[in-house]
Amino acid sequence: MTIQKVCILGAGTLGSRVALQAAISGYTVSVYDIHEKALDFGFQTMKKILSQLEKGKLLKEAQEKILSRIYFTTDAEKAIQDADIVNESVTEEVEVKKEVWRKFGKIAPKKTFFTTNTSYMLPSMFAEESGRPEMFCAFHFHDVFYSRVVDIMPHPGTDPAMIPMLEDFGRKLNQVPVLVQKENPGYIFNTMLLALIGAAGKLLTGEVGSVEDIDRSWMVNFHMPMGPFGILDSIGLDTAWHVTKNRTDSASVAFAKHLKSYLDQGKLGEKSGEGFYTYPNPAYKSPDFIQ
Amino acid sequence: MTIQKVCILGAGTLGSRVALQAAISGYTVSVYDIHEKALDFGFQTMKKILSQLEKGKLLKEAQEKILSRIYFTTDAEKAIQDADIVNESVTEEVEVKKEVWRKFGKIAPKKTFFTTNTSYMLPSMFAEESGRPEMFCAFHFHDVFYSRVVDIMPHPGTDPAMIPMLEDFGRKLNQVPVLVQKENPGYIFNTMLLALIGAAGKLLTGEVGSVEDIDRSWMVNFHMPMGPFGILDSIGLDTAWHVTKNRTDSASVAFAKHLKSYLDQGKLGEKSGEGFYTYPNPAYKSPDFIQ
Repeated sequence: MTIQKVCILGAGTLGSRVALQAAISGYTVSVYDIHEKALDFGFQTMKKILSQLEKGKLLKEAQEKILSRIYFTTDAEKAIQDADIVNESVTEEVEVKKEVWRKFGKIAPKKTFFTTNTSYMLPSMFAEESGRPEMFCAFHFHDVFYSRVVDIMPHPGTDPAMIPMLEDFGRKLNQVPVLVQKENPGYIFNTMLLALIGAAGKLLTGEVGSVEDIDRSWMVNFHMPMGPFGILDSIGLDTAWHVTKNRTDSASVAFAKHLKSYLDQGKLGEKSGEGFYTYPNPAYKSPDFIQ
Repeated sequence: MTIQKVCILGAGTLGSRVALQAAISGYTVSVYDIHEKALDFGFQTMKKILSQLEKGKLLKEAQEKILSRIYFTTDAEKAIQDADIVNESVTEEVEVKKEVWRKFGKIAPKKTFFTTNTSYMLPSMFAEESGRPEMFCAFHFHDVFYSRVVDIMPHPGTDPAMIPMLEDFGRKLNQVPVLVQKENPGYIFNTMLLALIGAAGKLLTGEVGSVEDIDRSWMVNFHMPMGPFGILDSIGLDTAWHVTKNRTDSASVAFAKHLKSYLDQGKLGEKSGEGFYTYPNPAYKSPDFIQ
């Protein structure tokens, strides 16, 4: 099977980026969302990324050609028409995702492969709902352009032949495919990132080190542009709190409480202008920070 | 107090690097070891680093001038004579370190500050032995030239005035000082690194991902030159096993067992030519690895 048409469900931050990359890679793309406003957000996001991404490299004309391959619609039937593969990036709520898969399972052509871009759920939670569990797999992007890993995570019922197909498709999307051999919440990268962030949180709430000294340690020793608290600010403290609050060990409980105290003050990280640092010029970006 | 003379105890890998950096920074340095052979190893290490470090930058003459500031001796009295500060990098064994501190506590001038460069022990384990606990603090380097964090970790009896003094001294040694506010095995960076490595080990032994895919995830998303298993190979699997085997959670137990199976085959990582990868050309350094 050759993939020609890609259908993206959900025009949020990640869905838009996957759709844009698919169009850059030459695919025909449909982007479906229930809200016209979301589609407009997606279109604006793509235009912004295109102009940043290819600064001075891509002519206006080429940018327009890429965008012309993307069709935005609130009409599910039109979105799925002739699609070879679906990648779903709708809200991270079980019931919402289940409903979407029930709906598209009914109207999709028989040939269409189904993939979910969920960050913290598992494909087995939706595979049966889709009506074609053997053609269902997680296919999870990070941010597409800077962090180019794509996780391929089958559930026990996925046809193994889907894996090489997705590896090939992932490479065509300029990603580095990684096989998650069995279902694991957080895949591979997020599992490690959460361990790092958990350790940083424990050092902070245990009063072993300051936010700045913890970040500094990571940045200087690994020559990285940000440390765990800078990363948390960019992920969003609300997202971090949602993940941390479900853990029951004492370090996670203490850190969730700490994160909540930021949320209660409206400090969500970079997007709200303040988190562990203040934006748009956080201290960790200053050359003085690591001297 | 102005530091002019630095005394390094132990001419191993880390001691040699600290001594060399102190000489580069203009200090007079004595390097003490009980073995002549160790001193020779230290001298060769320094010459090698100097030639790599300053390739084409530093004239032969300047290199010789730096080395001329370093005095190597197996004579404890001569090593400690007139020293303003000691940094101890002897074998990571409690009794060995205690003996060294008892010895130097007796013969050191009254003005001499004592610091330990221990990686996994705590300053309070040796402070009393030294006879001057208030002048005793951990001052821990990573690799001095690439990873330039220096941890300052007081024990409860350390005179707080030592902290700004060590911060200043650390900066003069071209390091980024980080304050570890209370005693913590592994300081700040190693605590986070171990959490990352523990998560990677759990993903491997749980058969969620391969060595390569776990490393790839970290390298690609964070644009890093190596992932957790590449890092483990450079640390040494023997060191990693020593740290892991003391942990009692099931993931650590499984990973310690896994590491032990490598050790039993003589695979210690980069230094033995094989670990998770084979050296000198490990797969993760190939451009193909992340494509």
